[in-house]
Amino acid sequence: MSSRGSITILEAPTKEKAVEAIKSALSRRRTLMIVGNCWVNYQGRARSILNPGERILIIKEDGSVLVHRPRGYEPVNWQPPGCIFHFRLEGDLLFIKAVRRKPRETLKIFFDKIYLLAAMSLADKGEFFLHASEEEMQKAIINQPSLIEEGLRIIAYEKKVEPGFMDVYGVDRDGRLVVIEIKRRTAGKEAVFQLSKYVNSLRGELNRRIRGILVAPKIARQAHKTLITLGLEFKRLDPKKCAEVLAKRKLGSLEEYY
Amino acid sequence: MSSRGSITILEAPTKEKAVEAIKSALSRRRTLMIVGNCWVNYQGRARSILNPGERILIIKEDGSVLVHRPRGYEPVNWQPPGCIFHFRLEGDLLFIKAVRRKPRETLKIFFDKIYLLAAMSLADKGEFFLHASEEEMQKAIINQPSLIEEGLRIIAYEKKVEPGFMDVYGVDRDGRLVVIEIKRRTAGKEAVFQLSKYVNSLRGELNRRIRGILVAPKIARQAHKTLITLGLEFKRLDPKKCAEVLAKRKLGSLEEYY
Repeated sequence: MSSRGSITILEAPTKEKAVEAIKSALSRRRTLMIVGNCWVNYQGRARSILNPGERILIIKEDGSVLVHRPRGYEPVNWQPPGCIFHFRLEGDLLFIKAVRRKPRETLKIFFDKIYLLAAMSLADKGEFFLHASEEEMQKAIINQPSLIEEGLRIIAYEKKVEPGFMDVYGVDRDGRLVVIEIKRRTAGKEAVFQLSKYVNSLRGELNRRIRGILVAPKIARQAHKTLITLGLEFKRLDPKKCAEVLAKRKLGSLEEYY
Repeated sequence: MSSRGSITILEAPTKEKAVEAIKSALSRRRTLMIVGNCWVNYQGRARSILNPGERILIIKEDGSVLVHRPRGYEPVNWQPPGCIFHFRLEGDLLFIKAVRRKPRETLKIFFDKIYLLAAMSLADKGEFFLHASEEEMQKAIINQPSLIEEGLRIIAYEKKVEPGFMDVYGVDRDGRLVVIEIKRRTAGKEAVFQLSKYVNSLRGELNRRIRGILVAPKIARQAHKTLITLGLEFKRLDPKKCAEVLAKRKLGSLEEYY
């Protein structure tokens, strides 16, 4: 066993040593990592059994749990922060149980071989910034039209109309056409006029009610008045929210990989 | 440095040693874990910057990448399998770049301190089994009615009607009432009659078209004939699919934690 700064590393510890180290790590709210051969039972919203294999277990200082196989970016088993842990020797096995109260969920992990156990206090106050461009906002809306409103269906994007290209073009739940103009920063009068041109051009072409929605994190006060006068709408949408949607979508689409 | 079986553990290695170990690990398709102080830039579907802090980096044998902070079950940055890696010393920094081709995504990680580097070949052939009960199937349908069909909205579940309790009760996109009966295994005639009783009871009470849908992984051939004769419908639904939906929902709802 060695201890350097805020990290404790045990190489192939006995189960007894592992139990001691886990006790110390959890009581001090350290992040715990165990690499070894294990199997896992989960019971909660569903049930699952993971047969034996070599994996990485991570228990974070906030009581979240991850079990990672050597392939795939997603954990095979996991628990959110706030778990309560029980652990003990069961014969020659290291038994760790993570319990969540609401909803009731139990994750049981059994190790018969431990190759590495590391416990550490990680100092991490670094901020995380997510950015999205107008193009990314457009992608997010196409991926999740409910960002604008429930029931919206997207028909096209970058659709050509007389004065240029509409960002997004769709149909609302009542069957009305919707033209969307996206701005990444505070929308001004120019954006309102741009949207108005598209809507008017379409109104000339088609004989139906057409809604124009200006989408931006904010709209200038005078621009908002003009917008209302022109019978158009404003929908507040934060580029950060769009970046999150795209990040989740990435996750979502890859879940199908499994 | 020590090497035991299929695991290599370096405690607080120099950057030069780290580069060597990474080269060896990636070329042998081993799983790599680095604990240290780092910062991360991502550019792809969106853009993000993660300021310096102590984290766990995992690069799996399939080329997936995870950056974990000491809190939260979700990685702060990640990449799916198939990344191509570039790494080198940049002054006193360890620089690792993970590139994905389609869509084009780049994750750049800079370490200025390394506390632990572990490289390992994990043998994991253990099967993973997901199970769902009828109650869990019901929960999955309530959470995601599109499992049955697009446009379905759930009104109630475990709703009492004359002969007992309907599993799920909803309205389809055309405004018709829908009664759903769930079976976890192959549905037989009994399930068909049970559903028929609920539907008939409601038809007696209300003066509108009511659809009855029997939901199960399979239906017996004779039961299917009876079902059609009675004007009812069958929807194939695998309990495993329901368990996956519940597992994802858990993820989804917890993403809001961030």
